[in-house]
Amino acid sequence: MAKSKAKAGRGTSGRDRAAAGERIVKLARSVVQTVRGADDPFVDIPARTLSNVQFNAKKGIIELQGGTQRRYFFSLLGRRKGEGSQAKKFMQTVRVAEVCKRLIDAGDSTSLRDLFYNLKVPIKTPPGTPRSRELIFLDQSESDPIIEDIEVTVSALREELGVHAETKGAMVGPLTIVDNGDTIDLTAMGSGGWAVPSIVEADVIQFVKSRAQFVLLIEKGAVWQRFNKDRFWEKHQCVIIHGGGQPPRGVRRLVYRMHNELKLPVYVLVDNDPWGYYIYSVVKQGSINLAFESQRMAIPAARFIGMSSFDADEFDIPSHVPMPLTDEDRRRAKEIRAYPWFQSKPWQREIQHMERLGVKLELEALSNKNFSFITEEYLPRKMREKRWLD
Amino acid sequence: MAKSKAKAGRGTSGRDRAAAGERIVKLARSVVQTVRGADDPFVDIPARTLSNVQFNAKKGIIELQGGTQRRYFFSLLGRRKGEGSQAKKFMQTVRVAEVCKRLIDAGDSTSLRDLFYNLKVPIKTPPGTPRSRELIFLDQSESDPIIEDIEVTVSALREELGVHAETKGAMVGPLTIVDNGDTIDLTAMGSGGWAVPSIVEADVIQFVKSRAQFVLLIEKGAVWQRFNKDRFWEKHQCVIIHGGGQPPRGVRRLVYRMHNELKLPVYVLVDNDPWGYYIYSVVKQGSINLAFESQRMAIPAARFIGMSSFDADEFDIPSHVPMPLTDEDRRRAKEIRAYPWFQSKPWQREIQHMERLGVKLELEALSNKNFSFITEEYLPRKMREKRWLD
Repeated sequence: MAKSKAKAGRGTSGRDRAAAGERIVKLARSVVQTVRGADDPFVDIPARTLSNVQFNAKKGIIELQGGTQRRYFFSLLGRRKGEGSQAKKFMQTVRVAEVCKRLIDAGDSTSLRDLFYNLKVPIKTPPGTPRSRELIFLDQSESDPIIEDIEVTVSALREELGVHAETKGAMVGPLTIVDNGDTIDLTAMGSGGWAVPSIVEADVIQFVKSRAQFVLLIEKGAVWQRFNKDRFWEKHQCVIIHGGGQPPRGVRRLVYRMHNELKLPVYVLVDNDPWGYYIYSVVKQGSINLAFESQRMAIPAARFIGMSSFDADEFDIPSHVPMPLTDEDRRRAKEIRAYPWFQSKPWQREIQHMERLGVKLELEALSNKNFSFITEEYLPRKMREKRWLD
Repeated sequence: MAKSKAKAGRGTSGRDRAAAGERIVKLARSVVQTVRGADDPFVDIPARTLSNVQFNAKKGIIELQGGTQRRYFFSLLGRRKGEGSQAKKFMQTVRVAEVCKRLIDAGDSTSLRDLFYNLKVPIKTPPGTPRSRELIFLDQSESDPIIEDIEVTVSALREELGVHAETKGAMVGPLTIVDNGDTIDLTAMGSGGWAVPSIVEADVIQFVKSRAQFVLLIEKGAVWQRFNKDRFWEKHQCVIIHGGGQPPRGVRRLVYRMHNELKLPVYVLVDNDPWGYYIYSVVKQGSINLAFESQRMAIPAARFIGMSSFDADEFDIPSHVPMPLTDEDRRRAKEIRAYPWFQSKPWQREIQHMERLGVKLELEALSNKNFSFITEEYLPRKMREKRWLD
C-alpha cells in the first residue's frame, strides 16, 4: 500500500485568495484611471455565451473562448433585450466586487442569498441630492450572474471570492484532513461521515495523510450509506464520497483536489439513465453554463465505472427489474448522445444500447440480488475486470 | 457549566430493535394460527386516515386514535376504490415484514428504494403450478405505505425495522458521541461538521459526554455554516444542527433524543414564512401523515426562537428588505393559522401580523445589516430577552 504525505497548501490557498483580491483592486484601479482621464469607464467581461464556449478535445474539458463584452458606465442601453442598462450593471459589478474584496480581507465567506440581501439597499446618491428609492438589487436573479461576471473577470473561483453554495454530501476513507484547524481522521467518522462543506480550498482544507488508492464518487446518499456500512473504503482502500444527486461545487472541487494533489484516480458510480450520464459528464468535462471554471473543477481523467446499459445482462438482472425509459428520458438520451465529448465508439454503443433496451437501471436495482451485491460483487468485479469507460 | 455524562443505551437500543423483531414474529404466528384453525387469516392495521388522527392538546402532539382496519387474506376486494385486493396487500405485508425481520436479524438496514427493488420479484406459486408473471411490487408507491403499515402494526419506528430515509444535515457542538463504534468529538469537526446519518437509534449513536446547554435547530444549511464559522456553539455552549430545509427523520429523531436523554431545551430557527412555521410545527407536534410516530419524534417543548413577524420592526430591518408574500404563501398562512396547535393568542398574533404586513423575512435578510448580525446580535438578544414562542 503506497503511503503518501500530501503537502498542504498546494492548489488554491489563502495566497491565491489574496491574489484574487489584488486582481479586484487592479480592476478598480483601471476604472478610476479611466475616470481621471475623463474617459467613459468600463470593465471587460469574458462573454459567457454559448458561442464563446467550446469543447477542447485535447484537454478534454469544456472551455471558454476569448470573446469579451465591454460594460460601460455611461450607457443606459442594455446589452440584450430586457436587460438593465449597462450603467446599472456597471454599478452592480463594482458593488459586488467591493463586497468580495471585504470578504477576502476579513477571511470571511457568505452565501449567494446573503450577499444578495446585503446589497438589497438603495443606490447611493451624492451628498445634497435627493435619496434614491431604487435598490441595487431587487432580486437574487440579478446578483448571481454578477458574481459569475466577477469570477471570470478576475479569474477566481467563487470560493476564492468567499461566496459559497449549498452544502450536500459526505465523505469517509483512509485519509486524514485538516478542516479549519481541526485534524479529522476520515476512517473514524461512524455511519454519518464528514459533511463536505461548500468551500474546500486549501486555506480551509488540507490533506495530511493518505492511504487511499482511488476516489469513488457515488451519485446517491442512500447508496453511499451502503458502501459505508459494508466498509467498502476499508476493504478497497479508497475514499467514498457522495453529493446527494448532482454533486454540489464543494464535492466536485474536493474530488478535483484529491485527483490532482493526491494523484488518485477517480471513479464515478451513477444510475444508468441519461441523468447519470450527465452527472458523470459534468464531473469529467465541466458544464456549459460554468465553462470558465472547468480548468479548476473538471477531471478529464474521471472514469465511468457504472451503471452501464450492459450491466443488466452481465450481472443477470431479471428483465422485470429495470424501469422503462420515459419520453423525457428518451429525449435527454438523444441530446446527450449528440454531445461532442460522447462521440467515441464505446460511448455511442453505451448510450444506444440503453435506448435500444428502452429501460434504465438504478443503483438500487442491484438490491434485487441482495442488499450488499453492489459492494461485494458488482463493483469489485467491475474494478477487477477494468470495465469502465473513459 | 453543567457537565453531564449521558448513559448510552437509553431510548431506542439494539434491544428495542430485537423487540420489534419479536413483535413481527408474533404477528406472523397469529396468522399461522388462524390458518391452522382453518379460518381466514388477517392482520389488524391501525388506520392512518385523517379521521383517525387527533391533536392531543394535553400532550401537545398529533396522535393516532384507536381505529384499525382488518386486512383479510381471502378477499379480492380493495378497501378503497383503485386499491389492490386485500389478498394482494396481505401478501405484500407479509413479504415486507419478512424482509424487515431479516434486516433486524442481520443488524442491517436499507433504503426504501432498495427494499422496493428487493421485492420487485414475481409472486411465488406452489411447486408444480405455472410460474406467475405478476410482481409483488411494480412501483415504490406500493411498497412505501406497506412499510408504514408494519411500523404502526408492530409499533416500531422505520429505523428499528432497518429502513432508512435520505440523509441530509450536519451537526457540531460541545458533545462527544459514539457513531457505529467511532468516538467523535463534535467540537473538532472543522467547517464541514459531522453528517447526520439517517438511522440514529441508540444501537448506532450513543451520547458519551456533553457540555451543551441547548440545541439550536437551524432550517438552512447556508445559515448553519455561518453559525459554525462564527463558532456560535462555542460561545453559547450549544449543539447546532440543520436539516437542509424540512429536517429529515434522522435529524428530527436525533434532536428528540438529545432533548429527552440529555435534557436539553430545543430552539428552532426558521424563515419567517408559512413554510418556516410548518417546519417548526412538525418538529414540535409531529405531522398528520406520520401521526403514529409523534410519540417518538415530536418535541412538544420545542421553542420557536424566530424569525418572528415582529423581528423586522424589533431589529430595524429597512422596509425594502423583506419579500412580499405570494398568493401561495397567503393561502398556506391561512391554513396554518387554522391548525388546532396554533390557536394560542401569541401564535394567532404572530401569524396574523405576517399576513397584515404582507411580507416574509428570510434568515438571510439579516445580512442586510452585516453577515454576522444573526449570530452576534439577533440570536443572542432573542435568547437573552426570552423572545420565543412555545
